[in-house]
Amino acid sequence: MGKIKFEIINKGKNIKARAGIIKTPHGNVETPAFIPVGTNSSVKSVSPRDLREMKAQAILANTYHLHLRPGEDLINKFGGLSKWMSWNGPTMTDSGGFQVFSLGIGLEHGVGKLLREEEGEPKPRLNKITEEGVTFQSHIDGSTQFLSPEISIQIQKKLGADLIVAFDDLESPKHNFEETKASLELTEKWLLRSKNAYKNSWQLLYGVTHGGAFKDLRVRSAKFNDKYFEAIALGGAHKNKQNMHDIVEWTVDNVSDEKPKHMLGIGEVDDIFELIERGVDTFDCVIPTRIGRTGFFFVSPSQGNIKNRFRFDINKPQFRTDPKPLDSNCTCYTCQNFTRAYIFHLFRSRELLSYSLLSTHNVHFLVNLTRQIRNAILTDEFKTLKKQWLV
Amino acid sequence: MGKIKFEIINKGKNIKARAGIIKTPHGNVETPAFIPVGTNSSVKSVSPRDLREMKAQAILANTYHLHLRPGEDLINKFGGLSKWMSWNGPTMTDSGGFQVFSLGIGLEHGVGKLLREEEGEPKPRLNKITEEGVTFQSHIDGSTQFLSPEISIQIQKKLGADLIVAFDDLESPKHNFEETKASLELTEKWLLRSKNAYKNSWQLLYGVTHGGAFKDLRVRSAKFNDKYFEAIALGGAHKNKQNMHDIVEWTVDNVSDEKPKHMLGIGEVDDIFELIERGVDTFDCVIPTRIGRTGFFFVSPSQGNIKNRFRFDINKPQFRTDPKPLDSNCTCYTCQNFTRAYIFHLFRSRELLSYSLLSTHNVHFLVNLTRQIRNAILTDEFKTLKKQWLV
Repeated sequence: MGKIKFEIINKGKNIKARAGIIKTPHGNVETPAFIPVGTNSSVKSVSPRDLREMKAQAILANTYHLHLRPGEDLINKFGGLSKWMSWNGPTMTDSGGFQVFSLGIGLEHGVGKLLREEEGEPKPRLNKITEEGVTFQSHIDGSTQFLSPEISIQIQKKLGADLIVAFDDLESPKHNFEETKASLELTEKWLLRSKNAYKNSWQLLYGVTHGGAFKDLRVRSAKFNDKYFEAIALGGAHKNKQNMHDIVEWTVDNVSDEKPKHMLGIGEVDDIFELIERGVDTFDCVIPTRIGRTGFFFVSPSQGNIKNRFRFDINKPQFRTDPKPLDSNCTCYTCQNFTRAYIFHLFRSRELLSYSLLSTHNVHFLVNLTRQIRNAILTDEFKTLKKQWLV
Repeated sequence: MGKIKFEIINKGKNIKARAGIIKTPHGNVETPAFIPVGTNSSVKSVSPRDLREMKAQAILANTYHLHLRPGEDLINKFGGLSKWMSWNGPTMTDSGGFQVFSLGIGLEHGVGKLLREEEGEPKPRLNKITEEGVTFQSHIDGSTQFLSPEISIQIQKKLGADLIVAFDDLESPKHNFEETKASLELTEKWLLRSKNAYKNSWQLLYGVTHGGAFKDLRVRSAKFNDKYFEAIALGGAHKNKQNMHDIVEWTVDNVSDEKPKHMLGIGEVDDIFELIERGVDTFDCVIPTRIGRTGFFFVSPSQGNIKNRFRFDINKPQFRTDPKPLDSNCTCYTCQNFTRAYIFHLFRSRELLSYSLLSTHNVHFLVNLTRQIRNAILTDEFKTLKKQWLV
């Protein structure tokens, strides 16, 4: 198969936002794009048909999960990830680095990649990192497993996603400068080994930038990645939203303009605007399906705003008799057919259909938001649209 | 609204099977038809769109459940059951009698309506029956509730289904003749009170036949129902499959030919053939969604047969690498798009999509089977089709 190409169609005036197309053998990814996550090769409770109808551009699946179950060999035998899950469009896989982090320093520090007030208690780590790679215990059966740059790339080659990511070590947001620097140096070695293992696959290999909250390290990592990779994923820890926005600026300013940039694991409405404005092309996040299963749904302005994080909780008693759709501006299957009152009832009755209706709406919401932003970039109306949303 | 009419299109030669149409304000129900159950006004994990695509003719919801949550008044305010659930086709509600039975003598005798070897331990009953009606405890919050013929019909009027059922007392399959007769006499009183409460609603009111396994009582009940009702539901307990088939014959032979006949709660492939052959027009059952959520899926001949009850278990290791659809003869969304291997993986990973894919297939399977039978009746090939399935 031919190499995957990224083409910039239009650049916003006075901003770094741009509209583009990633051309893959499985179809085009029109950017900016929100890429829904299908951890186990299924976007939780949303069917491939729903994903096509909402014009999702690509699906991201997790290398760590698919390696443990059902295994990359089986998916390879079935024609690769896209065909396996009957999606038949573009796909992406991550490196497994974040899942392995969650089993290690993430547990030990009681943190995710963002430092939150409500972090959990420290717990014993379930992994062990050496320069060679990471030994860890499977969350499924407790068996001992090993991941390295070579193994991660080998798995991702067999899974056959269009967009793949180099294997990295994740810093903790609680790490100091010296610890973060040590982690970054290990990541740099692993990125080079990933590239070496990748060789000349038809897939598009993303490097990953790290360096925690520290500008020096972030700039160093951006330059390093730009030197070795044709596509850049932004990873690693940050202290807060403002720090995350800064990190993106430090990174984008030090990476060639024409390379596609993917932000790993971000999916809040305000972040999507802020990061696209700073030059990010694609995003993935479990937010829309995860919050859907707990009853939350996205709402657009004027009901949605930064303060309520553009989301309501269907469990609130006020929705028991509400004849409106989840979001009055929405064109998704759920909003075209069902009332809040009905979905409230289904959710209270623990009906599986409620998770599916809420998740379909939420994924559609972010997919559609990034498409709206794309159109606004093309007509030079990005700032107007941003003002409508983030008043 | 005008009265609902049943029209017989064609009668099978030398058999009692017939093809017909129940004409309702929400559309036609082409019979024989399998009517999927949506207990809480949702066919579990199957969307209304899927139901329309598979040409489901009607949906049955449970009066008992909807009365407790969200309440008939709310559904009435939203335009009735069909509109409330965004199905917009014909609907049916049952009387609540069976659920109340399950909380009473069903618990005390540790039985369902069919006497099985593996029945459970007797438990204290959660209801109390008087001639006036049934006092019981809600399964949701333990609150004390009361159902009577008048209340059941009043609820069903507000729910607004096209097809509704008179309120009955259920006999236990462990009851002797005298106990069954006493239950039948109470049912007869309740049926008359149901009819009186129904008055001249536009809905089609089904009587319900009872009498357990006893021919005398079954004949008496059939004649009683034929005298007072325009449509007949077959209810009550039976000892085994052969006894159930006999009961249908005793009933149908004593009810006017032109009346539609509904068998409550039956959904096995062989029973559907046997009962249609004996003159039953419609069926409802939770089987396809209930078994779907535990991993079972229907298969047609030659893989399916009476011995395996036309079902396989997706959990079996042999399906881990199976590239075939669930059923090779099936035209449902699941079978047109997904492999057994993929669904095996989703089910093992507890992905919600697996319940939806399996349930959609299973409901489609029975809906499609009854449509095939209808076509065979119209072309006088019922016996040929039956032989292909029940070799």
